[in-house]
Amino acid sequence: MNLLHETLKAIKPVDEKWYAVAQKRLDYLTKPPGSLGRLEEFARRVVAITGNKNPIIDRKVMFTFAGDHGIVAEGVAAYPKEVTTQMVLNFLRGGAGINVLARHAGVEVVVIDMGVDHVFDGVEGLMNMKVMRGTRNFAKGPAMTREEAITCIEKGFELANGYARKGYKMFGTGDMGIGNTTPSSAIVAAITGRPVSEVTGKGTGISEEALTRKIAVIENALKLNTPDGKDAVDVLAKVGGAEIGGIAGLVLGAAANRIPVVIDGFISTAGALIAYVLEPSSKDYMFAAHNSVEKGHRVMLDAMGLTPILDLDMRLGEGTGAALAMPLIEAGIKIYKEMATFQEAGVSDEIIN
Amino acid sequence: MNLLHETLKAIKPVDEKWYAVAQKRLDYLTKPPGSLGRLEEFARRVVAITGNKNPIIDRKVMFTFAGDHGIVAEGVAAYPKEVTTQMVLNFLRGGAGINVLARHAGVEVVVIDMGVDHVFDGVEGLMNMKVMRGTRNFAKGPAMTREEAITCIEKGFELANGYARKGYKMFGTGDMGIGNTTPSSAIVAAITGRPVSEVTGKGTGISEEALTRKIAVIENALKLNTPDGKDAVDVLAKVGGAEIGGIAGLVLGAAANRIPVVIDGFISTAGALIAYVLEPSSKDYMFAAHNSVEKGHRVMLDAMGLTPILDLDMRLGEGTGAALAMPLIEAGIKIYKEMATFQEAGVSDEIIN
Repeated sequence: MNLLHETLKAIKPVDEKWYAVAQKRLDYLTKPPGSLGRLEEFARRVVAITGNKNPIIDRKVMFTFAGDHGIVAEGVAAYPKEVTTQMVLNFLRGGAGINVLARHAGVEVVVIDMGVDHVFDGVEGLMNMKVMRGTRNFAKGPAMTREEAITCIEKGFELANGYARKGYKMFGTGDMGIGNTTPSSAIVAAITGRPVSEVTGKGTGISEEALTRKIAVIENALKLNTPDGKDAVDVLAKVGGAEIGGIAGLVLGAAANRIPVVIDGFISTAGALIAYVLEPSSKDYMFAAHNSVEKGHRVMLDAMGLTPILDLDMRLGEGTGAALAMPLIEAGIKIYKEMATFQEAGVSDEIIN
Repeated sequence: MNLLHETLKAIKPVDEKWYAVAQKRLDYLTKPPGSLGRLEEFARRVVAITGNKNPIIDRKVMFTFAGDHGIVAEGVAAYPKEVTTQMVLNFLRGGAGINVLARHAGVEVVVIDMGVDHVFDGVEGLMNMKVMRGTRNFAKGPAMTREEAITCIEKGFELANGYARKGYKMFGTGDMGIGNTTPSSAIVAAITGRPVSEVTGKGTGISEEALTRKIAVIENALKLNTPDGKDAVDVLAKVGGAEIGGIAGLVLGAAANRIPVVIDGFISTAGALIAYVLEPSSKDYMFAAHNSVEKGHRVMLDAMGLTPILDLDMRLGEGTGAALAMPLIEAGIKIYKEMATFQEAGVSDEIIN
């Protein structure tokens, strides 16, 4: 609990003076002012986040948090629960979507067991931060205790602090957990007050019938557990998930360490929303990687005032959207650092009308 | 003329059977079917374009075509004409936006003088395909003769054929030419029949007053020159530009060689539209890199049925959007080639509802 309070206290809004500092250099570069659009925004933001006129983004890491969900007993997921474990092993062998896209982007992948319902004894390469063997079924009562929820968040801080110390300069978030669009939709509804039907989609591909059931399950669970939308830890404990708590903690830890953090899709953004409610200025450190197909994602982005970088009709999770967005943010930094100025290049910057 | 006819004859629509072949493999991979959205589309399309179940995209090249425009005498551009020459030299020194973004994406940059109003004597690294020293002012008469327009297109084929022979596997298009949004808007209006005011924007950043003038200049030029929207060579000759002709030729040459070609923004898409009118199936080989801020870009993409990959509020040209999009297309190919199948990974593909 001390760690939670300390971390929240360490997060400060970025100093907006850096935006102007960065824009000044951007406007000297050999291009019409503003013509590189959001690439210029990415550069300004990274300068402000790091408080460094000359930011270096060399080592990048993707954290893929895994957890299981008691709520799958209600028939809300397209795949059997065992797939969480199987996919964790797939990640460690390098065969999953996130592995391919992270390699492509030059990003390291760290896979974290936050709450998978399986004992991974002696499995190499897996980071063990297990808080529980799956959450409890929140159709019957809270998914976690308040203490468990805080422990999940604090594990996220630990990760962020450790990788900040090791010299990583950009973080990404990802998730794996069969059934985890259900707690994510429950979190959006609890925090934003929007009707469950407006923020609940088909996840990995359930039928219309299962979607109707999923909506009813969430509506009933919110009535049963009555999470307090203003108390993010309460929401996470009652209708959340272990991997979502880990993501929330990582995002807060990134902000406390002034490291840009690229938020993947629906589940990662639910984690980021928990972080945002705990400390709104944490959003200064977030980049929204993409616009997920999953209904309800945009509601969260709008609530936090984030604009997604990509819109490629994706809905896989794992961090795949974040891995695609990272090189675009880097592109903005490189534009800022590597382009010639009008003066250096002997190009006229006279605007004649 | 023979070369033009031969190239057009060599372009065939892609064989749609390849889409199903590629999708079959995509559906065996360890992800819910379709969950990687447009990345899966990119993979299907590259398989179909190359007619290769196992396409290799290693060497990529960006062609940045430069030309000057007599129409700048009418006060339609924000920068003086000399900036075209200055920027060509900036490209060759590696200091421009396209250099930075191409390096970031692992793409070679080739700069082509198609019609700059400057003699680059002994300048290293510049490809000399000069057809003219700037187009004529099309407010007073045709920008080029029909023969000059065909020569520009044929130079583009030569480039495509040469780089196909050298083993390059993906092409991108880019442009540099002060004033070249004006011919591009004229091309869109002439070919699509849309009002000039709906397809003309502020280019690199002219004033409202200059925009009003630019629209009037284009409207009058279309009345004076009466280009035939069904005869793309006529449109290119009367109200086009040398670099736009080179881009059209490159796109057609890419299609004839079955090489995917990534179209940058507004000016490149005007070139691609010329190619499309000459041979509609050339569009099977095109990827639309991004949605330019420039008004009228979307009109062309819609006319060809292309959906842009990125939307980052950019309007620089040079190939900058294409350089950002290429790694996303490659990401789709890598997903297709490198991800584990359900069977390989021991992951259950049972869908339970």
